[in-house]
Amino acid sequence: MSRSPGRKQENHKISRELFVLTYGALVAQLCKDYEKDEDVNACLDRMGYSIGVRLIDDFLARSAVKKCRSYSETADMIAQVAFKMYLGVTPSVSCSSATGNEFSLILDKNPLVDFVEELPAERASLCYCNLLCGVIRGALEMVHLAAEVTFLQDRLKGDAVTEIGITFLRKPEDRKHRR
Amino acid sequence: MSRSPGRKQENHKISRELFVLTYGALVAQLCKDYEKDEDVNACLDRMGYSIGVRLIDDFLARSAVKKCRSYSETADMIAQVAFKMYLGVTPSVSCSSATGNEFSLILDKNPLVDFVEELPAERASLCYCNLLCGVIRGALEMVHLAAEVTFLQDRLKGDAVTEIGITFLRKPEDRKHRR
Repeated sequence: MSRSPGRKQENHKISRELFVLTYGALVAQLCKDYEKDEDVNACLDRMGYSIGVRLIDDFLARSAVKKCRSYSETADMIAQVAFKMYLGVTPSVSCSSATGNEFSLILDKNPLVDFVEELPAERASLCYCNLLCGVIRGALEMVHLAAEVTFLQDRLKGDAVTEIGITFLRKPEDRKHRR
Repeated sequence: MSRSPGRKQENHKISRELFVLTYGALVAQLCKDYEKDEDVNACLDRMGYSIGVRLIDDFLARSAVKKCRSYSETADMIAQVAFKMYLGVTPSVSCSSATGNEFSLILDKNPLVDFVEELPAERASLCYCNLLCGVIRGALEMVHLAAEVTFLQDRLKGDAVTEIGITFLRKPEDRKHRR
């Protein structure tokens, strides 16, 4: 299942509903496969990572963005260009550390959970949209930016907003944040 | 994970690339879960069926189409309205039986296989896009049309085009086509 190198750059769009339901089927399958929420979360993150690694080429080709000169620019690029391009939404961005390497993407609406009302009680630790964290992590790694990406808040778990935290890890002084 | 009844009808689009890669992750996971291609195909069909059962409401609300008066009109509706709306492509339709209940949707390009060059040798019987068949089957059932939906040709398997066969089963004289 390798990528065709001769693939034309086209810009067809897909309905969000079909995507959301297909993503739901994927999460449901993983919940069948793995008993522990942590294993489902890790699997979604791994899958997302593989997707991000491949999606970055498409992103760079279609967005024609210039190289970012700071973590802050990178975070803005993810929110304003990448999220808009791939998910049709634009999260707001806030910098959440004095060291300037921790950012939050805040989604008032999460397009991946349209058909999901709440998580089942037995799946309270499930990070339903963890694929997104993996996608961001994988794509960033391909432009030589190591990062930790995790959900900090999730409306599916009763939080007021959905918040994705990105901690850039490249600078030596950031090593202490590494897992 | 139940559907929210109060959900607004919105029309955000998702990038095809993200969908295609996410779908690929789903198929890859099922290939891990099931040794036999037939079991993967059946699982994709079941998942698609569940999606179609839910997607039909969205389709009827957004398309505002009138009730079809013939199988032929229904096949045209699937190709020209539903495929266009959900996948951004319009297959051509041909009627392939004298009894007027068998149709083919012919896709010159299959938007789900953008990143897939060919199936691995050990997965020769995999119907990679079988989710689509299930979606069509599930959606038709919700408008009281029983149908068999299968891939008849697949470019991933070396065929010249991708062809989805739809056999409507409602009329008594069509019973012989039932599995």
